[in-house]
Amino acid sequence: VDTVAIVGAGLIGGSFGLALRKAGFSGRILGVSSDAALREALAAGAIDEGLPLEQAVPQADLVYLSQTISRILETIPRLDALLRPGALVTDAGSTKLAIMECAGRHITRARFLGGHPMAGSEHRGASAGSPLLFQDRTYVLTPASPEELDTPAAREFRKWIWKIGAAEMLLTPDQHDRIVALTSHLPQLASTALAATVAARLESEDHLRASGLGLADTTRLALSSFDVWQDILATNRQAVGDALDAYIRALEGVRERLPGPNLVEDFRRGAELRRKLAGRQP
Amino acid sequence: VDTVAIVGAGLIGGSFGLALRKAGFSGRILGVSSDAALREALAAGAIDEGLPLEQAVPQADLVYLSQTISRILETIPRLDALLRPGALVTDAGSTKLAIMECAGRHITRARFLGGHPMAGSEHRGASAGSPLLFQDRTYVLTPASPEELDTPAAREFRKWIWKIGAAEMLLTPDQHDRIVALTSHLPQLASTALAATVAARLESEDHLRASGLGLADTTRLALSSFDVWQDILATNRQAVGDALDAYIRALEGVRERLPGPNLVEDFRRGAELRRKLAGRQP
Repeated sequence: VDTVAIVGAGLIGGSFGLALRKAGFSGRILGVSSDAALREALAAGAIDEGLPLEQAVPQADLVYLSQTISRILETIPRLDALLRPGALVTDAGSTKLAIMECAGRHITRARFLGGHPMAGSEHRGASAGSPLLFQDRTYVLTPASPEELDTPAAREFRKWIWKIGAAEMLLTPDQHDRIVALTSHLPQLASTALAATVAARLESEDHLRASGLGLADTTRLALSSFDVWQDILATNRQAVGDALDAYIRALEGVRERLPGPNLVEDFRRGAELRRKLAGRQP
Repeated sequence: VDTVAIVGAGLIGGSFGLALRKAGFSGRILGVSSDAALREALAAGAIDEGLPLEQAVPQADLVYLSQTISRILETIPRLDALLRPGALVTDAGSTKLAIMECAGRHITRARFLGGHPMAGSEHRGASAGSPLLFQDRTYVLTPASPEELDTPAAREFRKWIWKIGAAEMLLTPDQHDRIVALTSHLPQLASTALAATVAARLESEDHLRASGLGLADTTRLALSSFDVWQDILATNRQAVGDALDAYIRALEGVRERLPGPNLVEDFRRGAELRRKLAGRQP
């Protein structure tokens, strides 16, 4: 890989550029983004040059799509005519089925390998980026078929994932979307609904003083931007709906077992999952 | 106040002793607890001497009940025969209606002022205590009537609350229990049920690698000990049930609005509450 085009030079794309540099990448890093985002990414040292898509993609061996999901879905159909043969297109979208389907239909002159780095921040923009954003984080890849992992460009991309400190995890697009419905999308909606419920029922804002760290922890995700989540929910409707149904059933079970000693099992299962999570996470 | 008896010398009781000392209290601090807890509290410097209830309470101007709720409900009926006239009994239980009712029935020879410091830790025991545990935290008082705040002993106790760095908040017992049902008990059950749902539906433990900080934040409370929560839920059944019903309805609303743009309102309300919380908390 001599030239990388980062399409969407925000927090994730900017951090990818910074991480590549820190890991020793000596080629060129082109950015495709709004003028404001390009200025921010250039100032942060995340890209070498800002260019329109039509000029950046034909130079690139690796095209890294780190826009929002809906923008990625708009970008993919425009790529095929621009791509170099042998180039690799990858993305960092939070859901994979819709993007993989779109790429399967529209990308014929190069390879596509779906990806999802489990990294982020509550901040936005390349100026909030960090070369360490991917360090010790899981980086999911969702190849359309196993051979997609073994092309020369894919092998080199995977080497860079390793060099920026991330841990590769292979899933099918379908598996990925069902898993993140549980591990990411459900927690988001649970947190948003919890905060909205407390807001609706609390008689006075001053009563928030009578809360501890528990409410702060469980509602932190409620600060998330709806812009980002609208795309995620729209492209993972079935799995998120199933996860929500299961959660509502679990809460109805808790409601029935109130105030009771029988809740000990719910607490045991919940604590066990949380301990596993603590053990798993870096 | 010359002599304080801390009944239940664990994390909260031990921290109260440490905080009193740090704030300049020069009287005696007696502890009533299991032998193991007393050794721990003595070693931590949280109490001066461990004694049985029958020997500690008759010496005390302030009796501080920091046991679990069910133990507090067992202790209160044993106190009346032991109390000095003019003494103040207070408690640190996480629900207030049941304790206030019990105290109203059983304490006749001294005053009772219910309390709930919004402070804690995932650790237990006086050895995990800190003189700063109450610093910048809300300390709820739930007087049975306004006069209970103005007895000489109550005025002095409230002065110590201020000296240990806590911020007094006055609520009726009923208000308190309804508020914490929303700000503490509902988040606990939401977190436990979320962790249990993820545990039940995830096909492989390894898939937890595909999770970010969001799942960790929203399920941190799931680590809580059921011993503590059994008492809380048993003594706040109605308000917790109402809060759970409201949360389930909110989630059903979210489910109906999936994947939709209409969720923007849920996100807006949730984010607004969370921002207020961030502004409120020390």
